[in-house]
Amino acid sequence: MKSPAERHIEDIVVGESIVTGTIRITPESLREFAGIYDPQPMHLDSVAAADSIFGRVVASGWQTLALTMKLMVEARPFGSTPLVGVAVDDIRFRQPVDPGTTIRARAEITGVRNRSRGGGGFITLLVSTDNVDSGDVVLTQKWTLLLPSRTASTAETSPQ
Amino acid sequence: MKSPAERHIEDIVVGESIVTGTIRITPESLREFAGIYDPQPMHLDSVAAADSIFGRVVASGWQTLALTMKLMVEARPFGSTPLVGVAVDDIRFRQPVDPGTTIRARAEITGVRNRSRGGGGFITLLVSTDNVDSGDVVLTQKWTLLLPSRTASTAETSPQ
Repeated sequence: MKSPAERHIEDIVVGESIVTGTIRITPESLREFAGIYDPQPMHLDSVAAADSIFGRVVASGWQTLALTMKLMVEARPFGSTPLVGVAVDDIRFRQPVDPGTTIRARAEITGVRNRSRGGGGFITLLVSTDNVDSGDVVLTQKWTLLLPSRTASTAETSPQ
Repeated sequence: MKSPAERHIEDIVVGESIVTGTIRITPESLREFAGIYDPQPMHLDSVAAADSIFGRVVASGWQTLALTMKLMVEARPFGSTPLVGVAVDDIRFRQPVDPGTTIRARAEITGVRNRSRGGGGFITLLVSTDNVDSGDVVLTQKWTLLLPSRTASTAETSPQ
């Protein structure tokens, strides 16, 4: 769901769903990410990876997570209201992700609640990341985001 | 704790602790990560960030997570045995991370259990990421990793 407007906690409804665009995890981007953030042979060295638990080079799970964030940001589900995460729960790496895989994210809003103090409120989302070609879910997680309320200025709404 | 040897599930003891090296989140690396993986004004645009909930540019939480992985990988807590994650739980972004912050990670092994099928076993770790200068904890999370057993070949031990 895209919206050019700024959306607030009062606008969000449980059950609302979000579908993002897609992105391909190229071998080059896989190597670049792993080289900086997850420098392990199973991500960087095809010979060593063949002897690993995966039997081949696979993407860092942290890259799949980071790309899921990119897809969600670019989908702009709350218009100009940013995605401010306060918690992530229940991350499950369900399948290895091969070089060249194209992924898409989907999310469903599972909860909305006002903060007890300060403006705004928290929403929870079940976020799934799919391998577009196989249709398999490769990653699932639960997000808690802080959204401003329609009446409060952002200055009144500080995180945590 | 560093070890040059390959460590197996049988070698791991609850209560064992890991302390990593440190890394500085430079303004340049902050901008580079956010530009690719979390392109939001609060990470990339100092004028827009001043109007955000944070009031200033802050690092993407996903970069702090990815750098925590880097620090843990480089600490080689299990020698040549890789860090193979199957789950991450209870991620809490406890404080915003400013450009220029130096971070360190700490982990404590909180559980060890054998797999019901296949070789190897799962360990759980409580992982904390600290702002080295202030001493504040900026991020906490719980990891579940799959480790091989001493007897099983890696080929017998496939993830999930």
